Amino acid sequence: MAHENHTDLLHALHDCMTECNHCFDACLQEDDVKMMAECIRLDRECADICGYLEQAISRNSPFIKELAAVCATICEACGNECKKHDHDHCQKCAEACFKCAEACKDVA
Amino acid sequence: MAHENHTDLLHALHDCMTECNHCFDACLQEDDVKMMAECIRLDRECADICGYLEQAISRNSPFIKELAAVCATICEACGNECKKHDHDHCQKCAEACFKCAEACKDVA
Amino acid sequence: MAHENHTDLLHALHDCMTECNHCFDACLQEDDVKMMAECIRLDRECADICGYLEQAISRNSPFIKELAAVCATICEACGNECKKHDHDHCQKCAEACFKCAEACKDVA
Amino acid sequence: MAHENHTDLLHALHDCMTECNHCFDACLQEDDVKMMAECIRLDRECADICGYLEQAISRNSPFIKELAAVCATICEACGNECKKHDHDHCQKCAEACFKCAEACKDVA
Repeated sequence: MAHENHTDLLHALHDCMTECNHCFDACLQEDDVKMMAECIRLDRECADICGYLEQAISRNSPFIKELAAVCATICEACGNECKKHDHDHCQKCAEACFKCAEACKDVA
Repeated sequence: MAHENHTDLLHALHDCMTECNHCFDACLQEDDVKMMAECIRLDRECADICGYLEQAISRNSPFIKELAAVCATICEACGNECKKHDHDHCQKCAEACFKCAEACKDVA
Repeated sequence: MAHENHTDLLHALHDCMTECNHCFDACLQEDDVKMMAECIRLDRECADICGYLEQAISRNSPFIKELAAVCATICEACGNECKKHDHDHCQKCAEACFKCAEACKDVA
Repeated sequence: MAHENHTDLLHALHDCMTECNHCFDACLQEDDVKMMAECIRLDRECADICGYLEQAISRNSPFIKELAAVCATICEACGNECKKHDHDHCQKCAEACFKCAEACKDVA
């Protein structure tokens, strides 16, 4: 079944979703929220698509490749924004995003 | 079918989801994003649960009442936050939230 | 804003999500559920991505084009399966799927 | 942060979401799909709410208690349906549902 073939991707998606949501939450509590606006926006985009793809893989969706390609694009955009910021949550998020983008590309 | 009995609620949910997402987007573009942080957080919460309940009603979920009760709570919290802010998008969002909270309570 | 430029797509997505969920629900109540298994699976896939894209457009996501391209693929697959079945809910669903696929392609 | 206090619940939700989606997929491939119709419906309900609550916890949602209460109800309903069926995927799903219902009640 699909989910057995995609163990690495499922891990990467789950980590990325979690880190993006932590970063979203932490950015909203920073002193300079304005500087984090794009990060907040992309964290939501990325957490949502990663969660979506996790669900899709576990239900054996016929569209995993197509969804993984979009997910890779969104993960990269989010990672590129996050890595600009020194906050620990942004750096950890960027790392998770880039790992996930790679895992998505392997499948797409 | 469930969706035929819930026309008003479906409308209210759809409006509320839309206004919350517009408000989320607009708040992220305001000069003083920090002041809008709680609004941004609650807009996401509210848009997500409204979209979720819309889907649940249209698939004839057996859990509409329970979900509508939670949705009412979230809509009220979002409406209360939004109405504190003078921005047009916040005021429109607050109105949609309160309408939706009422529609949810009628069903819950 | 994105949502003002995408009125037709938003309509098509909403109709398609609704018809797919109705069809999902109705298929599960048919006498011959086995014959409807692929329809049930694709109805869920299609309702979920349409709901997802609706949310993405209304929050002014930077990834509307990429998501619309995937959505078009899923809508077409679902429409092709639904149109094989004579049930009224399948025929209505197929129609909504093909319309939505076209609207997605206009944006993608 | 919320997610650090909810490690057990996050685990239970993730397992339950995964098992429900596996069961959904497997039920659609059974010989007697008709007998599994309610299981298919509830698997979707349960996978969706578990995935939703996972996201909500990881973004530090202010509504975890309320959502966990609904999630417990849905997990129990799904577990009760699944345990009626001898298929391995149904039995594993029922177990994950009941564990998740307990974890949700601890938080609600």
